[in-house]
Amino acid sequence: MTALQGTTTAAAEGDGGRWTLHPERGLPADPVLRPLARRVYEHVRGLPVVSMHGHVDVGLLERDEAFPDPATLLVVPDHYLVRMLVSQGVPHDALGVPRRDGGAVETDPREVWRTFASHWHLFRGTPTRFWMEHVLVEVLGVTQRLSSATADRAYDEIAARLAAPGFRPLALLDRLGIEVLATTDPADADLAAHAALAARGWGERVVPTFRPDAVLHADRPTWRADVARLGERAGIEVTGLRSLVAALEERRRAFVAAGARATDHGHLTADTTPMDPAEADRVVVSALRGEVTAGAAHALSAHLLLEMARMSTEDGLVMQLHPGVLRDHDAGVFGVRGPDVGYDIPVATEYTRALRPLLERFGHHPNLSLVLFTVDEDAFSRELAPLAGVYPSVRLGAPWWFLDTMEGMRRFREAVTDTAGFYNTTGFVDDTRAFLSIPARHDMSRRVDAGHLARLVAEHRLDLDEALEVATDLTYRLPRAAYPPLR
Amino acid sequence: MTALQGTTTAAAEGDGGRWTLHPERGLPADPVLRPLARRVYEHVRGLPVVSMHGHVDVGLLERDEAFPDPATLLVVPDHYLVRMLVSQGVPHDALGVPRRDGGAVETDPREVWRTFASHWHLFRGTPTRFWMEHVLVEVLGVTQRLSSATADRAYDEIAARLAAPGFRPLALLDRLGIEVLATTDPADADLAAHAALAARGWGERVVPTFRPDAVLHADRPTWRADVARLGERAGIEVTGLRSLVAALEERRRAFVAAGARATDHGHLTADTTPMDPAEADRVVVSALRGEVTAGAAHALSAHLLLEMARMSTEDGLVMQLHPGVLRDHDAGVFGVRGPDVGYDIPVATEYTRALRPLLERFGHHPNLSLVLFTVDEDAFSRELAPLAGVYPSVRLGAPWWFLDTMEGMRRFREAVTDTAGFYNTTGFVDDTRAFLSIPARHDMSRRVDAGHLARLVAEHRLDLDEALEVATDLTYRLPRAAYPPLR
Amino acid sequence: MTALQGTTTAAAEGDGGRWTLHPERGLPADPVLRPLARRVYEHVRGLPVVSMHGHVDVGLLERDEAFPDPATLLVVPDHYLVRMLVSQGVPHDALGVPRRDGGAVETDPREVWRTFASHWHLFRGTPTRFWMEHVLVEVLGVTQRLSSATADRAYDEIAARLAAPGFRPLALLDRLGIEVLATTDPADADLAAHAALAARGWGERVVPTFRPDAVLHADRPTWRADVARLGERAGIEVTGLRSLVAALEERRRAFVAAGARATDHGHLTADTTPMDPAEADRVVVSALRGEVTAGAAHALSAHLLLEMARMSTEDGLVMQLHPGVLRDHDAGVFGVRGPDVGYDIPVATEYTRALRPLLERFGHHPNLSLVLFTVDEDAFSRELAPLAGVYPSVRLGAPWWFLDTMEGMRRFREAVTDTAGFYNTTGFVDDTRAFLSIPARHDMSRRVDAGHLARLVAEHRLDLDEALEVATDLTYRLPRAAYPPLR
Repeated sequence: MTALQGTTTAAAEGDGGRWTLHPERGLPADPVLRPLARRVYEHVRGLPVVSMHGHVDVGLLERDEAFPDPATLLVVPDHYLVRMLVSQGVPHDALGVPRRDGGAVETDPREVWRTFASHWHLFRGTPTRFWMEHVLVEVLGVTQRLSSATADRAYDEIAARLAAPGFRPLALLDRLGIEVLATTDPADADLAAHAALAARGWGERVVPTFRPDAVLHADRPTWRADVARLGERAGIEVTGLRSLVAALEERRRAFVAAGARATDHGHLTADTTPMDPAEADRVVVSALRGEVTAGAAHALSAHLLLEMARMSTEDGLVMQLHPGVLRDHDAGVFGVRGPDVGYDIPVATEYTRALRPLLERFGHHPNLSLVLFTVDEDAFSRELAPLAGVYPSVRLGAPWWFLDTMEGMRRFREAVTDTAGFYNTTGFVDDTRAFLSIPARHDMSRRVDAGHLARLVAEHRLDLDEALEVATDLTYRLPRAAYPPLR
Repeated sequence: MTALQGTTTAAAEGDGGRWTLHPERGLPADPVLRPLARRVYEHVRGLPVVSMHGHVDVGLLERDEAFPDPATLLVVPDHYLVRMLVSQGVPHDALGVPRRDGGAVETDPREVWRTFASHWHLFRGTPTRFWMEHVLVEVLGVTQRLSSATADRAYDEIAARLAAPGFRPLALLDRLGIEVLATTDPADADLAAHAALAARGWGERVVPTFRPDAVLHADRPTWRADVARLGERAGIEVTGLRSLVAALEERRRAFVAAGARATDHGHLTADTTPMDPAEADRVVVSALRGEVTAGAAHALSAHLLLEMARMSTEDGLVMQLHPGVLRDHDAGVFGVRGPDVGYDIPVATEYTRALRPLLERFGHHPNLSLVLFTVDEDAFSRELAPLAGVYPSVRLGAPWWFLDTMEGMRRFREAVTDTAGFYNTTGFVDDTRAFLSIPARHDMSRRVDAGHLARLVAEHRLDLDEALEVATDLTYRLPRAAYPPLR
Repeated sequence: MTALQGTTTAAAEGDGGRWTLHPERGLPADPVLRPLARRVYEHVRGLPVVSMHGHVDVGLLERDEAFPDPATLLVVPDHYLVRMLVSQGVPHDALGVPRRDGGAVETDPREVWRTFASHWHLFRGTPTRFWMEHVLVEVLGVTQRLSSATADRAYDEIAARLAAPGFRPLALLDRLGIEVLATTDPADADLAAHAALAARGWGERVVPTFRPDAVLHADRPTWRADVARLGERAGIEVTGLRSLVAALEERRRAFVAAGARATDHGHLTADTTPMDPAEADRVVVSALRGEVTAGAAHALSAHLLLEMARMSTEDGLVMQLHPGVLRDHDAGVFGVRGPDVGYDIPVATEYTRALRPLLERFGHHPNLSLVLFTVDEDAFSRELAPLAGVYPSVRLGAPWWFLDTMEGMRRFREAVTDTAGFYNTTGFVDDTRAFLSIPARHDMSRRVDAGHLARLVAEHRLDLDEALEVATDLTYRLPRAAYPPLR
């Protein structure tokens, strides 16, 4: 009986059945909405993937080597997955997450995989479950529902698939339907891998993104070293505010030349209050000597964020802002493991006042496109939609990180469309480190939007022809238009 | 097939069909809920409109002249609509929004209308779409779905309709089913238009509302001039706190005599902390000399808001509080266009501590009725429902401004009913400048409440007879009771 | 016709019919979801009630006497109910809520009951309605839908039922299916009633909870007296920080010996910033002399909350934190009636930064289990789920107080599951003073979770076998595991 099916058709047929995913997964259950949603979804299901905000390592593409084992590919680097296992008492060591001190961690990938598989139930109801099912079944051809009992078989199936030549990263761009993929690159990146890819004809398909966080937060322990490398790469010795800004501008030029379409900024707040330039210069000079307070560093970050907007009006790079995450919440874990192991926690984030300086200066500038993200969904209807619904330079990015989920996406559409409409959003852009899951993330978004649009049609708030057009726009036209090529 | 119909029945019949709206638009799609919701909606669909919080210009009613052209009526003054077009790059000038410097803007209303019509797709999924469809089809008889192609025809159809004698403002009160309409009037209003209407027998049907914002915020550039006019109108020279309060009291008496039932207060915060009267007096005296800090002005606003509550306990005017909007976010736009062109942006708003001084003093006073509004829906379940659910003087107003939408109304009911029930809300009161859209706004609310009540019935949480009674209460009895006549 | 039935099947049969509740109340109306939800609900409907966070007076159980009249049992002590009636103008006096000054209040319980019954409509759509229907119909056998007209009959039916021997409190533990019940006891409790119950064989079934709020907030007027009683009970004279901590440790030992499994903490904020011990000592010493500022008291509360976590790592008591409620909002009402009469109002509550000191120290300690609650649902997806989704010591408690409702529970699952999954929650624990309503509250939770899981299955996001397992876990296994016995 269809209504009783879960994610797997096998569930209805006993454990012996092959693991396949239900084609209507993630669409509304309501019998009026389901066929409408299916119709909208089918309209966009096969469209190319436009992946303009990901964190895939460009070196992975440039080297184009076979992926390693299943655990190293799918478990160890995925902080969504690692954090859930840790939360239930599985130590980082058992998952093979490396230690900075070189201490021993689990090195047998099969053991890591077994640990993951035996905790599969933890992911019930989570987006990781949805994505991983897609990756395992649709991309990697795993045949049995994951569990302790099937862990080894799945491991072997995946390993065999990864060894196939069609599974090299560049080939996967075609297989996964990825039309364009943006990587994220530090301000001092040499962009050599991008150049090499371009030389092999991949320059339109794999593009860099300028991410200067490391040099915008003067109280980070690595700031001085990062600024030194920035200056070196730019050929400009950084001695104060003016040379810091000049070095940033120089690097942006190099990124534009390498095909970049956007910058990306992770700040604790969205503050863009300008400093008096002389005062900002004093902070830079002082910080270069290793002396900076948290307050001064924050003020400088805000000032430089505003500078980034100014530069965007000049070079046309789309400006992406991802504020509101307190990084490395546990200093002890950070000391042992470093960043990106699951300990970044959101905080309440203010946008209305914080962005006012930027928007008063550049909010109507024809060259600026500011894409706003949040992990604080309280700002959806209160601040983000009202800002995007009036300033021509503002667009809302897709639900991000902890909100990049079926429920988060649904709440996003329900909260922002009233005031911002569909056309002040960028459509879906993912936020993926996990290369193989990129299509899963886009597929989830297409399903959620299909369900949302189906409801509008069934409630006679939108005509079906409009819904189909909007679905295409959200899936393909808007992200393409939001991140135009500059070359 | 019914389920595939969108907003327009014409959509299913081809572009040649007449544009008509689906009678069940905005009701839940679920096949169990739909007939129940339809039954509840039909129960209240024809009830009179009680419009106790609008911004229609009383002069429009008093003059009772034919409306101007479609663009001047429907596009130029509607900041919801203007802001959406601006957000997508349409300049204010192209929409005929006047400049303070008298600079040239588009003056051909047909051109403005064409610009609007050609951007009709931007409003997909927004309340503006829902309201405007109602106005165009139900009120103005437009026959073709709006688009670039049909813009001129719609323009002509509307223009013809507006020229008809039955379309004068006062006649429309009957045609639109508006039983009572409150306007919003500054504290220094001469109330002459209200007196003229009363002399013609409209005094029970069109009533003023006392809105003293201009004289409660001492750091506004126009404050001194506004206070001077207030004093003049009241016959009291304002020289300090005492005379300012006396002038306000005098004007409230005049408003009560003119039929006012309520006051209305737009403050940046809900703060009601009292000042020492001597200190408050010093701030007023200093501000009258043009010297006031933002901090002192804010403190005085809070003090005067508390004074307003005290006055309400004496004269019985219902006190409406609309906090949490940062007005005129872009100083440059404000300089060129003035206020109310789409640049008011919400901020997070605290109520629990802010209202404590007021509620400790007057929260149980039998004469006070404090109606709270918000554009920060985070406060719905956390602060507003708990306050309204215990203080006898507190009622929750309808979802307001950016939340006056199908989704906003649904979230409001789902968030506040648990703790405040239905009977600590005022029922629906609109917030409309656009006269012709008043019925559309009430109709949307009736549909959303019908859907909400249908769900409670279908989930066996409420009996049908109760749901029908609640629907009538929310639509008619509660707003009538919440704003009783004082004369 | 089933779809038209409300809460009562009688509604369809006329007023003469017997009041019975619909077996599918609270399940989704959607015809695809309903049978699935019914199946999940039936799977857990009969499971024992694990009630680990309630406020039933242990003396009530120890005395095991017949309950008094219906009003004294069901109306007067229920602050949810009292606050709603007060909000609509019913004075506390008319409800028999006692005055501290001994002034006259209504003493006829039948009159109080009539007042309640005649305002029954106020509770439409509220959880009180759902719980009270369950209590009246399922537990107390009331036969007619409540109204002014049926008030006396209901009163007599309830009074007769309360007189029956099977309706004594301890017998009700069986009748209501309560497997284990935790009471809440102050730090200075003598625990005699618990000892007496244990002596009669109820020691595994009725357990105390350590609630030291009275001695952790040094600016409360009763703090010195409470600390004195704490010291006396502990046999330790409290003269400073060290002896205060020692006395708390001593009392925790006594609670553990008496079967306690958890502590419970009500703080205005979640702050856990440590103080310099010497400074904290100075604050204690000063406060013991009656001199303490609000700021110093707050800092000490935070310090002691951190100490509580440290003690939990040593004695294993589960630590429950309930922050974010501003108690006794109206000082006047508090002066006349005391606490817990409906005037506690939530405030915005921060967790990410506030808990950082605690989690950096103890977040990975194998002995700590920190259960977080909130009345600020904005923190669900932003802070609580991300924290619980990585720290092994953190679990999320059930939706609490103003959120302990069908809509609140639904939003909780939809907001936290994405990031925390199901297994970082404790399953349902109630927060009940009203003994007879405990099963109603658990039943509501089972229905909401059944609806949520049904949706996941129907949307093919979860297999049915998994949904049934999760339902059992949320209902029974997780709360049992979250509050393990320590003896």
